[in-house]
Amino acid sequence: MKKSKLKFSAAATLPAGFRAAGIVAGLKASGKPDMALFFSDSPAALAGTFTTNQVKAATVRLDAERVATAGAAHGIVVNSGQANACTGKNGLRDARTMAAHAAAQFGVAPELFLVCSTGRIGVPLRMDIILPGIEKLARAIVPSGGESAARGIMTTDLVPKRFTVPFTANGKSCRLTGIAKGSGMIQPCMATMLAFLLTDAQVDRRALQKALKAAVDQSFNRISVDADQSTNDTVLLLANGRADNRALKPGHPDWPSFVAALEGVTFRLAMAMVRDGEGAQKLVAVRVQGARTAADAEAAARSVANSFLVKTSWVGSYPNWGRLMDALGYSPAQIDENKVEIHYGKLLAVKNGLKAGASIEQLTRIAAKKEFAITIDLHLGRHAATVYSCDCTEEYVRINK
Amino acid sequence: MKKSKLKFSAAATLPAGFRAAGIVAGLKASGKPDMALFFSDSPAALAGTFTTNQVKAATVRLDAERVATAGAAHGIVVNSGQANACTGKNGLRDARTMAAHAAAQFGVAPELFLVCSTGRIGVPLRMDIILPGIEKLARAIVPSGGESAARGIMTTDLVPKRFTVPFTANGKSCRLTGIAKGSGMIQPCMATMLAFLLTDAQVDRRALQKALKAAVDQSFNRISVDADQSTNDTVLLLANGRADNRALKPGHPDWPSFVAALEGVTFRLAMAMVRDGEGAQKLVAVRVQGARTAADAEAAARSVANSFLVKTSWVGSYPNWGRLMDALGYSPAQIDENKVEIHYGKLLAVKNGLKAGASIEQLTRIAAKKEFAITIDLHLGRHAATVYSCDCTEEYVRINK
Repeated sequence: MKKSKLKFSAAATLPAGFRAAGIVAGLKASGKPDMALFFSDSPAALAGTFTTNQVKAATVRLDAERVATAGAAHGIVVNSGQANACTGKNGLRDARTMAAHAAAQFGVAPELFLVCSTGRIGVPLRMDIILPGIEKLARAIVPSGGESAARGIMTTDLVPKRFTVPFTANGKSCRLTGIAKGSGMIQPCMATMLAFLLTDAQVDRRALQKALKAAVDQSFNRISVDADQSTNDTVLLLANGRADNRALKPGHPDWPSFVAALEGVTFRLAMAMVRDGEGAQKLVAVRVQGARTAADAEAAARSVANSFLVKTSWVGSYPNWGRLMDALGYSPAQIDENKVEIHYGKLLAVKNGLKAGASIEQLTRIAAKKEFAITIDLHLGRHAATVYSCDCTEEYVRINK
Repeated sequence: MKKSKLKFSAAATLPAGFRAAGIVAGLKASGKPDMALFFSDSPAALAGTFTTNQVKAATVRLDAERVATAGAAHGIVVNSGQANACTGKNGLRDARTMAAHAAAQFGVAPELFLVCSTGRIGVPLRMDIILPGIEKLARAIVPSGGESAARGIMTTDLVPKRFTVPFTANGKSCRLTGIAKGSGMIQPCMATMLAFLLTDAQVDRRALQKALKAAVDQSFNRISVDADQSTNDTVLLLANGRADNRALKPGHPDWPSFVAALEGVTFRLAMAMVRDGEGAQKLVAVRVQGARTAADAEAAARSVANSFLVKTSWVGSYPNWGRLMDALGYSPAQIDENKVEIHYGKLLAVKNGLKAGASIEQLTRIAAKKEFAITIDLHLGRHAATVYSCDCTEEYVRINK
């Protein structure tokens, strides 16, 4: 993550001109919050990124179309409990109806509303619960509603995930707020994760989409809980321009500030997802450097970060570097086992493919930490990539069985 | 698996001219058997297949060279407990020493002995224990020693894996015996698995290697316990010709019989590995048909068979077909979600990508079985592939943490 002077807080303090709410509509047997709504009082410039899974939720199809065509949005309505994926034409009809019903509450055009769903795949949406839920949400939204909205989108998440950062553009005070959910079926490209990013800065739409894509590539697309890529992954960014600054884009003196805010919020949200990974107790940064190509660096890091045996070894805090070597060896990346160097934290564990440096006891002290980094140098080139992963515990199995 | 009239038995009845033994040499803290030796009284034609992992155990490097050059072997010496992988030049020297020491016990050339190791990666071999172990093995081998050898190669295996089948060649009685180990780090291509196939039939060496490769491709290379491919996977096939038949090869009237014996034994050993997968309680055959290409069929089947979420859902016997759709969608295989058809056993669960046919209760009865098949028709072409997988239980995590 890049350093910046920005001050990020773990809060969902909405930017000017936004209102939100989260409620219990009744979709979940548990009685937990299950719907949320975000609304910008004026139409906002819109950017979005979506799952690359060939099986896409109805909401993903609808939102992707709206990002590509309308390029602007007034609001987002979200339900958890049912994913509206593998639901065919009826699913697409339901997604359109959700958007239209939400838009009608505010008297805005239906295509200016976006829809997200997360939960079980293959189950039809309970529209009899969702439509009254939307009406309730429309009455409930308030400028201070970010926190309840963050809870309304949770599924197996244990904690809400939200960050807010202030920044300035042309001397005007702006704010960027990010709210996300996700703890299982997480290997985004995109990972089931939803993230909503809201800002009152004015941002050029093309620049907004490019900046979002770049930020997502280095945050949500670099985490993995279980290597399973969801059908529903969606990140939406709304910029309503309420701060009345000159539109931000590359070349604008405050563009770097906006980018730092965006990267900082997305990275923090992504890390919050891994920390809250289903059953996870540890966050491990797997950095591969010295790779021949950027693709090799990423492939090698993913191979290690996704290995069942590597992830289970982390549970026991055992610095089992043999399993790292094994996962490197079967990755599609080119490696030469005689050149591999591995560090746990700052301790050298492997040099020239052989045990070296620190003792097992020293390495175990690193591997026992709640967060640590493994740095693998392939010594074949100059490319690097980091993937953020977590341990695979018995609790992960219990949650998903 | 092809039907044949051959009678396979779960036994390690060695073919004529072979002797074997398994012993406790003292490599394992548990005091369980940890070494085995197979010996053919006359030099045997040799075939072998090995891991494609870029990180290869010293034994794999040595044996692969001997299969390529010598093409014949007198014996195989095996240790469990230490993998002799990531051990550099010392590891290769140790492997050569093991082979030479074994060969010396029988007064045969060192290059006619093969060596296999399985166990922890990155640990030097305890040669002080192994060399006396080899001497003990040389005294212990007997024609009835197949069963004890099968136990000597086990690591986390709960049961020994061995099958024997009689067949005839030119009217002569022959036998093929297969002995294998493997339950974790299993996704062969090759999967940590070792398998030793012994026959007293006379077989043309080139035909032997081709037949072995074909049999391995449809057996060991089609199973997955945890998608982790080992550094040590090795399959060796020795044919000592003691039956004195005309050399078997394509065109020989008894060639189909030999191939059926070989395929039958390798397939049964592979299934035994999945059933004994670390922590596994279920064997699930994931068949993908109607794929555009053979590579697509295999990729789609592997994507489903290796998904953490699919494998954990099997633990709970829940017919969670949404997770199958998700894994198909992110596989590199081309799919059209609107054409996907899924059966659990013979029950239709999904048609045109949507829930269809059987009720959840009916599907659950299939998913609750100890062994069942999931058949996925992509309806895009005529290619098919099956991957045999198991559930990922809390016990798997406990074993590997």
